[in-house]
Amino acid sequence: MVAIERSRSTERIASDIETLSGPDYTLSSEAIRRYAYTPVYRNTLDYFTRALEDLGFEVYEDPVGTLVARNVPRGEPAFGVGSHCDSNRNGGRYDGTMGVVTALEVCRLNKELGLDLPLQLISFLEEEGSGFGQMLLGSRIMAQRVTEAELKESFRAIDDGRSFWEHAEAAGYEPERWQESIRILDGLTGWIEMHIEQARVLQDTGNRIGIVTAIAGYVHADIVVHGRGDHAGATPMDFRLDPGTVVAECILELERLARAAGKGTVGTVGEIEVHPSIINAIPERIRFSLDIRGIDEPLFRAVAQDIAAFAENAARKRGMSAEYEVRQTLPSTALDERIVGALTAAAEETREPFMVMHSGAAHDTMCVADHVPCAMVFVPCKDGVSHSPYEDANPADAGLAAEIILNAIAALR
Amino acid sequence: MVAIERSRSTERIASDIETLSGPDYTLSSEAIRRYAYTPVYRNTLDYFTRALEDLGFEVYEDPVGTLVARNVPRGEPAFGVGSHCDSNRNGGRYDGTMGVVTALEVCRLNKELGLDLPLQLISFLEEEGSGFGQMLLGSRIMAQRVTEAELKESFRAIDDGRSFWEHAEAAGYEPERWQESIRILDGLTGWIEMHIEQARVLQDTGNRIGIVTAIAGYVHADIVVHGRGDHAGATPMDFRLDPGTVVAECILELERLARAAGKGTVGTVGEIEVHPSIINAIPERIRFSLDIRGIDEPLFRAVAQDIAAFAENAARKRGMSAEYEVRQTLPSTALDERIVGALTAAAEETREPFMVMHSGAAHDTMCVADHVPCAMVFVPCKDGVSHSPYEDANPADAGLAAEIILNAIAALR
Repeated sequence: MVAIERSRSTERIASDIETLSGPDYTLSSEAIRRYAYTPVYRNTLDYFTRALEDLGFEVYEDPVGTLVARNVPRGEPAFGVGSHCDSNRNGGRYDGTMGVVTALEVCRLNKELGLDLPLQLISFLEEEGSGFGQMLLGSRIMAQRVTEAELKESFRAIDDGRSFWEHAEAAGYEPERWQESIRILDGLTGWIEMHIEQARVLQDTGNRIGIVTAIAGYVHADIVVHGRGDHAGATPMDFRLDPGTVVAECILELERLARAAGKGTVGTVGEIEVHPSIINAIPERIRFSLDIRGIDEPLFRAVAQDIAAFAENAARKRGMSAEYEVRQTLPSTALDERIVGALTAAAEETREPFMVMHSGAAHDTMCVADHVPCAMVFVPCKDGVSHSPYEDANPADAGLAAEIILNAIAALR
Repeated sequence: MVAIERSRSTERIASDIETLSGPDYTLSSEAIRRYAYTPVYRNTLDYFTRALEDLGFEVYEDPVGTLVARNVPRGEPAFGVGSHCDSNRNGGRYDGTMGVVTALEVCRLNKELGLDLPLQLISFLEEEGSGFGQMLLGSRIMAQRVTEAELKESFRAIDDGRSFWEHAEAAGYEPERWQESIRILDGLTGWIEMHIEQARVLQDTGNRIGIVTAIAGYVHADIVVHGRGDHAGATPMDFRLDPGTVVAECILELERLARAAGKGTVGTVGEIEVHPSIINAIPERIRFSLDIRGIDEPLFRAVAQDIAAFAENAARKRGMSAEYEVRQTLPSTALDERIVGALTAAAEETREPFMVMHSGAAHDTMCVADHVPCAMVFVPCKDGVSHSPYEDANPADAGLAAEIILNAIAALR
């Protein structure tokens, strides 16, 4: 393993993060707001371009604006590192950006230490969906998980309603060549993305590093329970069809089902919408959302099916009805055992506390994994807070991640 | 008992209701919208004034605009009948208005049949709270259940923010004499208000008439459960503090408590407000409302105390906290046994199906009952729907109610 002066990596990462939190790189001083094709996003790409060109990398952007940098000619084998540098609408300094900054630090260390590893850095476009309401947009374009009609028509800017296509053209890109975006994977022998964990498992278990073996898939759905709106005072208990009681039963059943499924399966009711929402009216109907995730595909999909069936049954028992409707679903992604093994070995060498875990959140790596062996490395974020200006993470953990990633790539060569 | 030609009463009531649903009497053609001090409200008072003057009544308005009509000089004993003729913001034809129309029919029958009963009709102001957001406003002013500061400052028009006081003056009234409003009860020997039931008990039990023995009191309150906002995908089940689970337990416990309390006690969660309400975020906190009512004061107040204690305990068990806060509370109102007895005897004579029941909804009669022996008569409304343009009720039931009320008053003379 290569010995690394960790304090220097920590300082460089802290300095990059500090710079990219400055007024040239965010639309607001209250939070990080950095979306595709804004001037502050352009500045951010330019920052990484300068830093990577200083290291002798060739830097280019794909037809929609994903940044790619290589220290070997295009097409030749190289190992991929990176993340995304766009932000949530009310974002913090670390989500995505710290992953790109840490990838840059891997490139720096590679040069400084004379390792000569062939590397490729990617900074994906629009992971957060803040510009056009579409999560993982850049990596989905790359993976051909979108249609041209969506890019031209359906995907529209939240701020001005103009299409993704128009915005990409206005920014000087060539969206008509979007399908060529897949070529940024040409020659990639592997991929490691570093990201903040976005939960509190690392913090609460006292680990500095998480090595990710799988990314959870999910079912996003809604259940609407139809009851009967009645006067809250004038309607005796035996005369009511109160959908709230069915919703309550479903919330508790979802908790039970997710716990019973195990293997990291989770289920969440994040939205509850009551009609008409008046203190003295029994609700006519209530909609609630379901976010069900897991790394074991049959297990988490069974939870979704079971809660749908439970809701229908619970409603019927009380003389009501319930409808289940899927919004979106994504399969889980198993990561590459060989890369995970190399990361684990490199982490053990550091004698710092780490754990092997899965990711409950979605990441661009899900799209890369269709084509290239992948893994991810997590670092803790304070109290699990992300997508918030209160997001906080320790550059020293990112420095440690850079060391582990570099050594893993070296070992895999 | 006096025999009455019911079809004629039905026709006159239907005709009054039809007229008062016309364009001169509502601000909208989509729903009945009739609030204090609007031109359409003025037209409605004028309609009743003309009809009552035709019957030889002296008609006047109190210092804030409550309509009073008497067929004997002021101060002399008379029996009171009436309701309110303002509407909900999205109201129907029957709530309140059919009570005043039926009271008018009682006055007509009294004259036609030569009964010579001393009668006083009252149409209270702003029962629905649509103008100034204050329920039972006219009868509360009469019962001195408001303060001058509220009338001058706190009670403001929903539409333009100007105070009740300003609006009353602009409409030509003398709000500075509001305390004299209590004098409209001078000489009243009793009071019967007819109203649509606003629930489905009469319809579903096949009764045409409900004789009301008590009006439920209520506790309006909120419970806020404080959990911890976390990423729905990245936070394992064992690491979450999800307030939704506590809310679910409370909804089911409230149902259990209300049923266990019995005696018509009811409990409703009408509002659920989730923060931040995002499909992929475990809620940080959830507020839900409580509407708990009953005619047995200690019983329904115990339900409120028990659910507050349950919520605090359920939250604590899961490592969270819950706060209970009362918005408003009103004692229950027992109605007068003698008047209830006279109504019951008169209803039995008609051989039509009727029942003795309590009112879960609040009514102006609660304020009258502080000073005068009272009862109420309910008629069915279709499917229990009220406060809606879909409100529907049968004028024939109102005609039957007029017959019963007239005979009860005659028997009480």
